[in-house]
Amino acid sequence: MTDKLIERIIETKNPSAVGLDTCLEYLPKEMLENVNSFESAAAAIFEFNKNIIDSIYDVVPAVKVQIAYYEMYSHFGLKAFYDTIVYAKKKGLIVISDIKRNDIGSTAGCYSKAYLGETKVDGHFERAFPSDMITINGYLGSDGIIPFIDDMKKYDKGAFVLCRTSNPSGGEFQNLKLENGQTIYGYMGGLIEKWGATSIGSFGYSDLGAVVGATHPLEAKKLREQMPHTFFLIPGYGFQGGSAEDLKVCFDSQGLGGIVNSSRGILCAYKIEKYLGKNYYTAARNASIDMRNDINSHINIRSAK
Amino acid sequence: MTDKLIERIIETKNPSAVGLDTCLEYLPKEMLENVNSFESAAAAIFEFNKNIIDSIYDVVPAVKVQIAYYEMYSHFGLKAFYDTIVYAKKKGLIVISDIKRNDIGSTAGCYSKAYLGETKVDGHFERAFPSDMITINGYLGSDGIIPFIDDMKKYDKGAFVLCRTSNPSGGEFQNLKLENGQTIYGYMGGLIEKWGATSIGSFGYSDLGAVVGATHPLEAKKLREQMPHTFFLIPGYGFQGGSAEDLKVCFDSQGLGGIVNSSRGILCAYKIEKYLGKNYYTAARNASIDMRNDINSHINIRSAK
Repeated sequence: MTDKLIERIIETKNPSAVGLDTCLEYLPKEMLENVNSFESAAAAIFEFNKNIIDSIYDVVPAVKVQIAYYEMYSHFGLKAFYDTIVYAKKKGLIVISDIKRNDIGSTAGCYSKAYLGETKVDGHFERAFPSDMITINGYLGSDGIIPFIDDMKKYDKGAFVLCRTSNPSGGEFQNLKLENGQTIYGYMGGLIEKWGATSIGSFGYSDLGAVVGATHPLEAKKLREQMPHTFFLIPGYGFQGGSAEDLKVCFDSQGLGGIVNSSRGILCAYKIEKYLGKNYYTAARNASIDMRNDINSHINIRSAK
Repeated sequence: MTDKLIERIIETKNPSAVGLDTCLEYLPKEMLENVNSFESAAAAIFEFNKNIIDSIYDVVPAVKVQIAYYEMYSHFGLKAFYDTIVYAKKKGLIVISDIKRNDIGSTAGCYSKAYLGETKVDGHFERAFPSDMITINGYLGSDGIIPFIDDMKKYDKGAFVLCRTSNPSGGEFQNLKLENGQTIYGYMGGLIEKWGATSIGSFGYSDLGAVVGATHPLEAKKLREQMPHTFFLIPGYGFQGGSAEDLKVCFDSQGLGGIVNSSRGILCAYKIEKYLGKNYYTAARNASIDMRNDINSHINIRSAK
């Protein structure tokens, strides 16, 4: 699946994803007129996502859908999450479900079925939330990761393990030094590179990637050197303070190696002075193109073979 | 909320929770006759849970509902998860939603609204998955934990942070030594004790607890000494190999300090030789009483004031 993602990045000349972290507060007022329950809220959120997807699907290779925003609206929100995934895939986008799941082996297996694999019902199989890639957390060690790797291989999917996150206190725990001098995030990076070693695709990157924030360029640089076969999902651009200059260290000499996410900066672009007067989806398209150009002014993506 | 949980533990003389990690494979064949879709699967699972709850609500203080099992059945499963929470609360049980959520501050805030707090819709507030307590993962540091602590205080709720998990490879990462000689799980334990310091209730335990597996008694003993104000959620009893003898180190001299979870051992008791011939909910009740008695043969729970 990382191969497919890279192919789409090369085709679109765009190593960025639009983050569909949609909540009611991001919607224009006129879309809230009939919203008075979780069910109607979820319907409005899906409508918003659909218009954003229609407006950006030819510009970006992927969307990242942050499930927390949908869980706020109970199972109705999860219905909108499902509908968003299915719609984005129909438009040819690669869907990264940002779920950060983690548990013991048997339970990790359930999560894996839900997002990467299939669930058995009455002798046949159905897909619960049919994503292409997901995010996961490695705190529980390898038996909490292996079920995802197994399904990744079986169904041609991908996963990104949390390594060095973009939030201000990410380093509080992740930057602690182990007795061998390595940081916790560096050790996790080593585990990810090892776990992914049997899933390396034709561009040299594994289907098991890592989440590496754009807000810590020195650490990202070290990780890029330490993890030559690991593709990065890079949050933190824009609203969180990461710049294109900061994140160029995540990319290799061919301009590959990572995909940068922006959520609020795209979804709420219509509220920003630069795009004022445009409707939300046109503003989102323009902001997405501006983001692509900003990143491309710092890296050179190779051409297709 | 930990105070309320402890009061219920004293009333029932039972420091254990029934884990509702329900999947289709656990249901008796006759309940599967009309199951042919996610929607009908979710309905059957809720029916099963309802009968289990009716059968155990006067014996145990709490249920732990593992959300991964419901996510496998898409948004229909999440509806069953919601219905299970609401029904268990109506029967007076304390509901622990085992979700192991984690993210950056703003997104952690969404998860917190979904499970502990409320979501704003059209000027009023509704609860998405109205739990009493949840599990969370501290890999992202304090700004990923604070939103949960804030809601914990505002709504009188509780949360358990992953510390030393019960799975075989839990130690692979958690047992690594830091340069100060502390293990990762020990360091996380220190953070949890610190984060919970402003939420200590009348029994001396904070509303911010820790997940400490029953399968590592030596480590659990150290954590009990290191974390005198932290209440433990103790998975790993039964099917995973932890015994009542193993987990008694988690309790203080008053027989308090933790709640032990068993899932498959209760839900699938009707498949075990000892309970053969009983229907699933009667077997679950008997297994739950046997578990209580087993634990109580190793600890002495104090009386009410």
